[in-house]
Amino acid sequence: MTVKEIISEIIKKKKGDGGIKEVYFVGCGGSLGAFYPAKVFLETESVSIRTGWYNSNEFIHNTPKVFGKNTVVITASHRGNTPETVKAAELAHKAGISVVALTWSQDSPITKVSDYVVSYSFGDDKDIAQEKTIVGLMAAVEILNQSEGYDNYDDFLDGVKKIDGIVKQARKHVEKRAEAFAEEYKNDKVIYTMGSGAGYGAAYMESICIFMEMQWINSSSIHTGEYFHGPFEITDSQSPFMIQISEGPTRELDVRALEFLKKYGKRFEVLDAKDLGLSTIPASVISYFNHSLFNNVYDVYNHALADSRQHPLSTRRYMWKVEY
Amino acid sequence: MTVKEIISEIIKKKKGDGGIKEVYFVGCGGSLGAFYPAKVFLETESVSIRTGWYNSNEFIHNTPKVFGKNTVVITASHRGNTPETVKAAELAHKAGISVVALTWSQDSPITKVSDYVVSYSFGDDKDIAQEKTIVGLMAAVEILNQSEGYDNYDDFLDGVKKIDGIVKQARKHVEKRAEAFAEEYKNDKVIYTMGSGAGYGAAYMESICIFMEMQWINSSSIHTGEYFHGPFEITDSQSPFMIQISEGPTRELDVRALEFLKKYGKRFEVLDAKDLGLSTIPASVISYFNHSLFNNVYDVYNHALADSRQHPLSTRRYMWKVEY
Repeated sequence: MTVKEIISEIIKKKKGDGGIKEVYFVGCGGSLGAFYPAKVFLETESVSIRTGWYNSNEFIHNTPKVFGKNTVVITASHRGNTPETVKAAELAHKAGISVVALTWSQDSPITKVSDYVVSYSFGDDKDIAQEKTIVGLMAAVEILNQSEGYDNYDDFLDGVKKIDGIVKQARKHVEKRAEAFAEEYKNDKVIYTMGSGAGYGAAYMESICIFMEMQWINSSSIHTGEYFHGPFEITDSQSPFMIQISEGPTRELDVRALEFLKKYGKRFEVLDAKDLGLSTIPASVISYFNHSLFNNVYDVYNHALADSRQHPLSTRRYMWKVEY
Repeated sequence: MTVKEIISEIIKKKKGDGGIKEVYFVGCGGSLGAFYPAKVFLETESVSIRTGWYNSNEFIHNTPKVFGKNTVVITASHRGNTPETVKAAELAHKAGISVVALTWSQDSPITKVSDYVVSYSFGDDKDIAQEKTIVGLMAAVEILNQSEGYDNYDDFLDGVKKIDGIVKQARKHVEKRAEAFAEEYKNDKVIYTMGSGAGYGAAYMESICIFMEMQWINSSSIHTGEYFHGPFEITDSQSPFMIQISEGPTRELDVRALEFLKKYGKRFEVLDAKDLGLSTIPASVISYFNHSLFNNVYDVYNHALADSRQHPLSTRRYMWKVEY
């Protein structure tokens, strides 16, 4: 079934009960981060649907009271076996709530406790339009369009059509920059990421999944609006930042933070969605595509950094190695 | 007017339009962080009210479409002059939306663009029950109770009655520990905070307002559920953490992270709400009081750390000094 068909079936089932009123995106780490644009989409665009964005274990222990017949849980687990995520899906499934699980790994534990399973594209040749992030967004867009209508639906589909080409071009575009970045920052102990709007999730993922997890570099993802209310005081000529300049309504926030870095900082790498070619996507929906662009452009930097630090992205101290 | 009276008047005004359906908590930095428990309260307890938690500038540029006659904006600015927050309040006020502003400074710019102003307690002799955090929570509790009813309303008021005494006792309790902490960590370049549930906002504030802003120490606030999905890989015998062990439904998450730190880390400071005396507050509402407890206990550590580092908490590079 396509995402569109899945959402259509869920809405049909819930029709007698009033349709979909709450959508919870539930996951852990990168799988949670990938849902950030979908959460911002519903939060911003919908007039009738509540949405939440929860770490799986937080969701299990702090389940919203509204959780019931009008609820949809959209969850993701790459290998389909993240214990907390499987448990969260199971909790929802047993309560009779519609669970849509995104996974790369068919026939995994999460598929046993979900009502619908969508597999996504992953790996070197992946189609960005079929990636977890866009699949999650597509579910949110279908929920909105089929529940209350969405004026920019066609624009959104146009964006989905374009994103793969844009990302692949952008990845080539940054190859040399990424190598220079890797040389410059290979000995740093801390690297911050910055972003805003629907693209902020990419900054979160880069910080926790790459710098902290895969490179053991200290990090935090700073919201460019929050930067001026605390975090900016750590800025000096030595502190390193990767800053996302998004396309869409919050671009102004990102540019303001960049101007500050230019004045008081010295070591920052700019990922500008405009420079990276995102602007061919319609303005009405462009902000929701920042995440896919940045997330996949970071990947070029990550490989270069791993090489220059001789610290492969697959190195772990604990994951897959110890019980926790 | 009391918070209860303010909410009562707003609900009366909105009665013909269907009452309060959306509550947005809007602020910057510490003023945003202080609203975290109120946001989690409505997100968890309400079956009919949508809630959002926005940085003021994000809210201005990425305003939710639902924003209208059923919306309440609750905002805070300590001196009442944070430009983005004043602008967000003004935007709402001009759109005819009810704006409740929390401020310490009467007669400040934000009071001119808000429908209701609540001043809160601040400073060395402050009453914790009258602090920004509890005032924000009280607004959320009144909105819920007056809109749909709240079974634990009396328990909540009981908690409000007890919190000041608990916090003051807890602050004494940690005095010696805080001095030892300050000695041990005075030369560290990075200190992480960790937390979960409604208390997570205290970890966020400590990270951005104290470590980054007031001590120029690198930091990030790690959610204890997210810790195992990326961030935990930076844990070694040298990496420093301050971990909140909350009371309430997500305690299990915090304890799990602490067990990991005990096994693989060496340098961590534990703030345990149980040990700090929070348990006399009824179990039904206790989680919403973690924030006030932790936030005010951190303060004892912060002063000790500032002394041992000879870096006063009032030192700034940029705030109050340069244009940005």
